Amino acid sequence: MLSKKPQGVLCDISGVLKNSVNRVDVAIEKSVEAFQRLQESGIPYVLCTNESCYTTEAMAKKLNRIGFNVSADKIISPVSVIVQVIKENNNRPYVLVNEKVADEFAQFDQTNPDIVVVGDAEDDFTYEAMNRTFRLLVGGERKFYCLGKSKYYLDSGVLKLEVGCFIAGLEYSSQVQAEICGKPSSAFFNLAAKMLGLSPSDVVMIGDDIDSDVGGAMNAGCQGILVKTGKYREKDAHHPTVKPTLIADNVYHAIDVILSTK
Amino acid sequence: MLSKKPQGVLCDISGVLKNSVNRVDVAIEKSVEAFQRLQESGIPYVLCTNESCYTTEAMAKKLNRIGFNVSADKIISPVSVIVQVIKENNNRPYVLVNEKVADEFAQFDQTNPDIVVVGDAEDDFTYEAMNRTFRLLVGGERKFYCLGKSKYYLDSGVLKLEVGCFIAGLEYSSQVQAEICGKPSSAFFNLAAKMLGLSPSDVVMIGDDIDSDVGGAMNAGCQGILVKTGKYREKDAHHPTVKPTLIADNVYHAIDVILSTK
Repeated sequence: MLSKKPQGVLCDISGVLKNSVNRVDVAIEKSVEAFQRLQESGIPYVLCTNESCYTTEAMAKKLNRIGFNVSADKIISPVSVIVQVIKENNNRPYVLVNEKVADEFAQFDQTNPDIVVVGDAEDDFTYEAMNRTFRLLVGGERKFYCLGKSKYYLDSGVLKLEVGCFIAGLEYSSQVQAEICGKPSSAFFNLAAKMLGLSPSDVVMIGDDIDSDVGGAMNAGCQGILVKTGKYREKDAHHPTVKPTLIADNVYHAIDVILSTK
Repeated sequence: MLSKKPQGVLCDISGVLKNSVNRVDVAIEKSVEAFQRLQESGIPYVLCTNESCYTTEAMAKKLNRIGFNVSADKIISPVSVIVQVIKENNNRPYVLVNEKVADEFAQFDQTNPDIVVVGDAEDDFTYEAMNRTFRLLVGGERKFYCLGKSKYYLDSGVLKLEVGCFIAGLEYSSQVQAEICGKPSSAFFNLAAKMLGLSPSDVVMIGDDIDSDVGGAMNAGCQGILVKTGKYREKDAHHPTVKPTLIADNVYHAIDVILSTK
């Protein structure tokens, strides 16, 4: 049961609306229907992803290809957060990110950088690029932002290093800690609520990751619904510190409860 | 004052026998003379370096070019330690090291590797090489050795990342901790003493690094002399936990005390 009627909904994408099976997107059962019910209800929503290798436009296209009807301006990602931060502070970023999202930073002056932004640059993590990044960090004069800190991922049956490996290395050598722009940081959920013109306490987050989605959102003051799809495992329901406001079988059930709460 | 007459001497190279000034080796004042006195005394010695970008042959040549008279078999480095470990355990190593020392591993079968060895590979730290290394580590079935864990170094006025950055990243993503083959590990000092046919308690280590040289050697059971050359700073003499057996002005003074101890 929710503690109060949410005025807005934040919803994770992977593991809640869709899964990736052998790199092919597949809508989770009844998720297209659930999402349509949410849209028809008029309750404002934002889709919240930690994906930093696709632009929000590309994410919207991926969803629409499998039956959803969503526009890019309804999706936020770690890139959205850092772009917002840069605009608010008028920063000149040094950027080492995946080439698929590099264009998002083209709008900013990148000369004489005053902050450092590192995302999942994959093949662009060369020794030379790591050195360039390190030299800007060492001494601690610039703030260090990362677009995630995951350890690795499975790509077509092969394990590949994620950005976390390179962030941890840069943190070790520069002795500067990175601030994570994605979930579970409160900055992420605050921005998502702000996009809806609401405060965190007025929104609910739906996610399959007990720490990153539910724990992060609840830390920021939101309600949190854990769904039993995607990466959900039985033990997540008995997490030592994160107690979801509600555990739902799937996003259909979650949205049903949200809409029927008075 | 030393607590007993050492039967053998371990001596650091950089900062004790020589400094590098703009990448040029320069013998430290009276170090050539001191080293000659040690050799003439007949007390057995080993030079102990953490250098993993040069073979012991190349290190000997560098020293002899500035007035010393030393042979490669009197020098041990992290590569010497790991080569010894591999021989003793009959390992098949996967090796990601600097091209300048790669030949030292050519003697070993590197197919179907059962241990992972990472040194300062510099430009060879590509995303692909990091992934290959990571895949062998994740799961924790193979022991992980590193040839050092320094954060960075100064190369002709420019800071460059050292192996520690990449080790820390691989440790973070694989959740496997690396064992350091160089100083300050006890394995290093044990091997050095063994080369002299002595036990650690019978040898003294001379170094300019309070932690890596003096702390490491004393942990292994050796006596430790800190010299006030190289990277020595005033605060090192007041280290919270490492109390050198003796603090000497330089290697000449250190060897003078060793030779005159009854």
